Amino acid sequence: MPRYRMTIEYDGRPYRGFQAQGALPSVQGAIEKAVLGFCGEAIRVHASGRTDTGVHATGQVIHIDLIKDWKAEVVQNALNAHLVPEPISILDVQVAEEGWHARFSAKERRYQYRVLNRMAPPALEQGRVWHVKKPIDAEAMHAVAQVLVGHHDFTTFRDMQCQAKSPMKTLDVAAVRREGEVVLLEFASRSFLHRQVRSMAGSLVEVGVGRWTRDDLKAALEARDRRACGPVAPADGLYFTGVSY
Amino acid sequence: MPRYRMTIEYDGRPYRGFQAQGALPSVQGAIEKAVLGFCGEAIRVHASGRTDTGVHATGQVIHIDLIKDWKAEVVQNALNAHLVPEPISILDVQVAEEGWHARFSAKERRYQYRVLNRMAPPALEQGRVWHVKKPIDAEAMHAVAQVLVGHHDFTTFRDMQCQAKSPMKTLDVAAVRREGEVVLLEFASRSFLHRQVRSMAGSLVEVGVGRWTRDDLKAALEARDRRACGPVAPADGLYFTGVSY
Repeated sequence: MPRYRMTIEYDGRPYRGFQAQGALPSVQGAIEKAVLGFCGEAIRVHASGRTDTGVHATGQVIHIDLIKDWKAEVVQNALNAHLVPEPISILDVQVAEEGWHARFSAKERRYQYRVLNRMAPPALEQGRVWHVKKPIDAEAMHAVAQVLVGHHDFTTFRDMQCQAKSPMKTLDVAAVRREGEVVLLEFASRSFLHRQVRSMAGSLVEVGVGRWTRDDLKAALEARDRRACGPVAPADGLYFTGVSY
Repeated sequence: MPRYRMTIEYDGRPYRGFQAQGALPSVQGAIEKAVLGFCGEAIRVHASGRTDTGVHATGQVIHIDLIKDWKAEVVQNALNAHLVPEPISILDVQVAEEGWHARFSAKERRYQYRVLNRMAPPALEQGRVWHVKKPIDAEAMHAVAQVLVGHHDFTTFRDMQCQAKSPMKTLDVAAVRREGEVVLLEFASRSFLHRQVRSMAGSLVEVGVGRWTRDDLKAALEARDRRACGPVAPADGLYFTGVSY
């Protein structure tokens, strides 16, 4: 029973998140349907992590177990054909090593958050960026973002619905840079709490537009209180970009 | 009666091209409706050039004449508000100099064509790139593209429906480069024939994938015969990127 490891890309807009929930459209449901169409096997897709409604991915990693042994390339091409016209693409398929698991073997997850920082709203990037009109100082944001790096209690940046047992996480990377009109935020951690990236991104933009100082961000983190969080950034700008194993 | 010069961005997918044609959705129609909503004036939008169904723009230039004198910033913000939820954005508004005309004053128009060159289909870029699976040699394409630069009879690269009086055009720039999985083609000319960019892009991709040589492209150009053109590249990958005055 071979296990196939796949890297996938998707546009999160049409889905109620990654995870299948009854008849609601989900990335997981769409892929499971494509597998059924391709080889008749009703399987479960396992992902390195879930994404929320409207959140995109350029490097989500999943696995499936199939009874029959197919060449990886056949699986990739067949699934992409069966996924039409869903905005989900199988970028890469490999036969996984014994014992490897998309979720449990993951050592680091990476997210990117994209802010379109200009007066005019997005046209080509509708639903794919957060539009912030007020000028952002990306360098100041980057400097202050370092407050979040390290091992902390991230209760402030955690959704009330989060089911993780502990709010303690180690943030490895928090980097901010400007590319023209776009401000890019990058985060890496072994794992994230529910809405942690959007909570941190929203609070960091408060810093970028000059409403919060370094001390304000530090105080918010140290408060360990959800009410101390800045506005939660919308799903539109969030991309799950990669996983390391 | 002030004339407003505007730079606009749009996603071409929902529109039957730039030009208003009865009740069909068009970029021009959407902007004219927004102007009517903003100030009650039923005006005509003039563009530097038309774009076809599904063709995008990041730097189209238009003008409108209004009876009342508004601040440029007011016009921009009001039109963007009235354009919601259309994927059209007014990037910049300026009061035009006396005698300036979006179409007649234009000295150079620029287009970009985007090819996604990988096995997997686009997910996030559906409808916004041409997906070509076969590996493309962008350097070879760039070298051969220089055959098209200069003053030529572009009959081969002109749609049968083209209404221009002459097929003679001067192509100033034809440049091809790779950025990761994307091959970018850039073209600049005082003006283009109908479907000229897509016709040149499709023929150049024949070169990139190794089906055409430099001599084949040269022979196609010199044939001055529409039947000598390669496959016309789809609208999805085409972006009108800018105009010089």
